[in-house]
Formats: sequence, C-alpha cells, structure tokens
Amino acid sequence: MTNYLVFGHKKPDTDTIASAIAFAYFLKQEGHQAEAVALGEITGEPAFALDKFGVKPPRIIQTAANEVSNVALVDHNEPQQSVDDIDQVQIDYVIDHHRISGFNTPQPLYYRAEPLGSTATILYKMFKEYGYEIPADIAGMMLSAIISDTLLFKSPTTTEKDKEIAEKLAKIAEVDIPSYGLEFLKAGADLSKQSDEEIVDGDAKNFVMNDKSIRIGQTNIIGFEEILSRKNDLLKVMEDKRQEMNLELYVLVITDVLESDSIGLVVGDDVKVVEAAFNTKIENHQFDLPGVVSRKKQVVPPLTSAFNK
Amino acid sequence: MTNYLVFGHKKPDTDTIASAIAFAYFLKQEGHQAEAVALGEITGEPAFALDKFGVKPPRIIQTAANEVSNVALVDHNEPQQSVDDIDQVQIDYVIDHHRISGFNTPQPLYYRAEPLGSTATILYKMFKEYGYEIPADIAGMMLSAIISDTLLFKSPTTTEKDKEIAEKLAKIAEVDIPSYGLEFLKAGADLSKQSDEEIVDGDAKNFVMNDKSIRIGQTNIIGFEEILSRKNDLLKVMEDKRQEMNLELYVLVITDVLESDSIGLVVGDDVKVVEAAFNTKIENHQFDLPGVVSRKKQVVPPLTSAFNK
Repeated sequence: MTNYLVFGHKKPDTDTIASAIAFAYFLKQEGHQAEAVALGEITGEPAFALDKFGVKPPRIIQTAANEVSNVALVDHNEPQQSVDDIDQVQIDYVIDHHRISGFNTPQPLYYRAEPLGSTATILYKMFKEYGYEIPADIAGMMLSAIISDTLLFKSPTTTEKDKEIAEKLAKIAEVDIPSYGLEFLKAGADLSKQSDEEIVDGDAKNFVMNDKSIRIGQTNIIGFEEILSRKNDLLKVMEDKRQEMNLELYVLVITDVLESDSIGLVVGDDVKVVEAAFNTKIENHQFDLPGVVSRKKQVVPPLTSAFNK
Repeated sequence: MTNYLVFGHKKPDTDTIASAIAFAYFLKQEGHQAEAVALGEITGEPAFALDKFGVKPPRIIQTAANEVSNVALVDHNEPQQSVDDIDQVQIDYVIDHHRISGFNTPQPLYYRAEPLGSTATILYKMFKEYGYEIPADIAGMMLSAIISDTLLFKSPTTTEKDKEIAEKLAKIAEVDIPSYGLEFLKAGADLSKQSDEEIVDGDAKNFVMNDKSIRIGQTNIIGFEEILSRKNDLLKVMEDKRQEMNLELYVLVITDVLESDSIGLVVGDDVKVVEAAFNTKIENHQFDLPGVVSRKKQVVPPLTSAFNK
C-alpha cells in the first residue's frame, strides 16, 4: 500500500478536478491511500459541478514532497504544468489525453494515454477493465469533464467513445445530458464573476512558432455582446502581458459554446500573419473565427503554418 | 484505416520481436494495416521461438519514413533505441514496460506502459480488454517473451501478473512451461554460435554515473565453464571498446539462467568502485555476483550508489 496525492494541471479545469477525484477513488479500490488535490483555486465550471453533485472540493497544495513520496498525475504530463516540486517525488501513474512533452522518469511506471476527448473518458474505461463500480457523485463529475472538454460534443476533439461513455455516466449520475450540459456550460461562461485578467489569461498557453513566442488564451461565453462591451479593457491586459512576456502576438479566442463560433482578439506589432492564417480581415484588433471551438485543432495548426511560410 | 510499421528496439530480443508481431496482429483487428518489422538481425532466443511456433521472421528495416507515415513502438520509447529516422514519422502507439526518457510527441497518442515483467504481458491484457482472441502461434511468441524477460520467473522484475498470464498463454500455445522454458533458454544460451563481440556487446547499454560513462553488457549462459575458457578474448573486446568509446568502466555480467547466479568481468583504470558496489574482491578482472540476474534491478543501482559516494 502506498500513500498517493493525485492531481491534474495548474489552473485546474473540470477534467483535471474530476479526473483527480475519480483516480484517487480508483487507487483506493486498488488498496492504496489516495487523496485528490488541486494546484490552484477552483472556480467557474468545476466549482459548479462539485456543488451540483455534492462532492467536497479538493484541497489546494503548493508542493507535494512535504506530504508524500509518490504521486499520480491526471490530465497532464508536462513538468511546467505540474506541481512545482514534481522532481522531488516519484511519479507512479499518469492518466492523460495530451501530447507527451518533457516527461522523463528514472523508473518504469503506469502510463495510460489515449487520444480521446477527456481524461475522464479513459478513466471510465479503466474502471470497467478493473471491474470497479463508479459512485453516482463521481460519475457526475466525470460526465461534467467530458461535457467541458468536448463543449457538449461540439469540439472536433470529440470521439465516439466520449459520446458513448457520457451516456453511461449520465445514467449513473441520473442527469439529462442536454439540460445539465447547458446549465453547466452557462455556469462556466458567467462573465460577471471574472476579472479582465481571468478572462484573458486564465487558460492561456505559450507556443513557439518559427522562433517567435505567441500566447493564446481562450474563454468560453454565451453570446458575444457582454464580453465585447469589455473589449478595450481586455485588449489592455493583452498588450500589458505582451510587453511583459516579450511576445510577438497575444491572441484571445472568445468561444460561444452554444453557437460553436468564435471571435478572435489580437495585439502585436505585425498581425498580418493572423489574417493569412485564418483568411480574414482584422478590424480594430478583432476578427471572426466562424465554426472554431478548439484552440488545439483549429487555431494552433493554421497559425503555426502561417508563421512557417 | 492507417498503414503501420510496428517495431521494438534495436538489437532485438524476444520481447521486442514477439510484441511487434502481437501488436501488428492487434492493429489489424482494429481495422488497420500493420506489419511487424525488426531493427536488426534476429538470432538466438527470438530466432528459436519463431522457428518453434512457425512464425515468419519480421523483415529488417533501416528506416521507416520511406515506407509509412505512422508507426507503433513496442518495448521501447527512447529515441536512440528506435529507428534512425523516428523523428520523420508520427508515433500513434507506444506499448512498453520501461522508464520514459527523451520521448516527446507533437500530438496526443495512445501510450500504454505498466511496470510489468514484459511488454507481452501488457499486450495480453489489451487483447482481453478489446475481446480479441490470441492465435496459438502468437501466444507461443508472447509466452517466450515473458520467459525471456523474467528468466523463467526468476528475475526480480517478475510480477504475479506475468506468471498468471504466462500460464494462460501456455494453454493457448499448448506448451508445458517448465520443459519449453528450459529448451528456449538453452537455445539463447548457446555460445558456440556467438562471436566474442556478440557475447560482450550484443546487449550492452551505456549509463552515466557521477558524470562517468559506464557500459554494462549482459549475456545469458548455462554453466560458467565454457564461457570462462574464452575469458581473455572477451576481456580484449571489452578493453578495445572501452578505449574506443572513452569509457570509465566496461562491465560484463555473465548470468547462468538455470542457477540464477552471475559472474562479472570488468576492465577500467580504477575498478575499486566495483568492489565497493558489490562488496567483493576482483581477481584477474573477475568477481562473483551471487543471486544476481537483473542488470536493471541488481547491477545498475548499487553501482550508481557506489559512484555517487
């Protein structure tokens, strides 16, 4: 029996929180001690889901080695997204659905990644393989993770497995997917509780394209009107970050999760490459991204190509 | 449907060959095209197993990108152990039981690693999970892989899962584990067909210990007499390699697979660290390693500790 802390990435989203809770429960079935923890404040979508299904929010930690020798990672593997002292603990498990990058271990481990819409989808498969029942409250969290990562099955990252497993989890959790999904996504899209900084940078990631640093944020909303009334304030945060981080461009993708459409905001000295990437016109730092919902599949690849031309 | 080449590491051993064959078969059940190939000549143990179970030896390749865009790796993940042009192809699957080191992908993939005795053990679990039957000839190869990597369940890397799954594979392949195991290990331990270079360097790996380069070879034999009659020739190969590769030490672990005992040979300017590591006396480049069968678990750790003292 080993004592594990189980956690997802920094700036926790619903998949990270739900998967940590589900995998900690899984490890307990395997005879281990395990506690799900978070690497940052839990707000918006995941907070709503925890409340809805009556699950106690995971404790927030800054470091792991002061508490345990062994950890399990969910929904991430890259060291810079993990706990600050990740090099001081032994990683025995990784359950993830991202690319593998900069991840190294001195010893063999259990590593399970699949190119599916959410980590929770992989965890559902593992529960079935090992013959463990999923409690209703955890099923509700896992369903929320799938809805969140696939934007209610509208993101191109969605697979048939995600849809099939979401149906099964909804039965266990006794919720109706269309109505709960809407309620849940609305909770995450509530702008009134978010600062300009949170909207712009809360889920932003850095990318290197042809030796240039590009930062791309994404925020989920319902209806563009409210957020565009804050446009000048958002652009100011983006320009300040760009100077501070010495970036070529800062792009913010504003995604209407019900309409499956996005609008982009951009700041930078030369934004022509953005016009080329998305075959669009930028007017007053703003451009349309019709049908775009996935940063990973629909924003990063065309922008990377345009920078390499 | 994708067209895959499936391969294990360079200097192929039984687990690498058997797992490539088994996973290529698995991918075909999933509706893909897949061919198992090898990254070097197939001799000794794996050649014996292929012949015994009537399986066609995999074709040997030097590069992959000239044939396919997508590959599946088994029994390894480190790029330097893989095909030379691994950076020119997309890795969609990894099935492995080693540490993860230097492995990076630009996109999400299927990665399945477990700390079990062989890759074939993990593949057996996957066949069951997906509900695919294992043909008798492939079961024979997978059984051989488990016997090889666990030295007939005597290596400390052996888990209960390896034993349990070996029994199931033996039933499908219709062989008796004790008698086939002995016959198979003897075939791999036949020194008469191996050059001094093959014995010393055929399975050797480099390790960095306290900034010094150490190369450790391992060879499986039955009875020490025959190999020790070639000791001076083996030491000459080791010393030549040491000079050529600028190594601090060259260690050869000679393992009697039936007695589960080893003898070490060593060349180097200062071999005192080896005496300290194994609490032994070196006489004429030779020392005893009683009860040692695993380089990974019983040779590398004490030597690393001794170098760091």
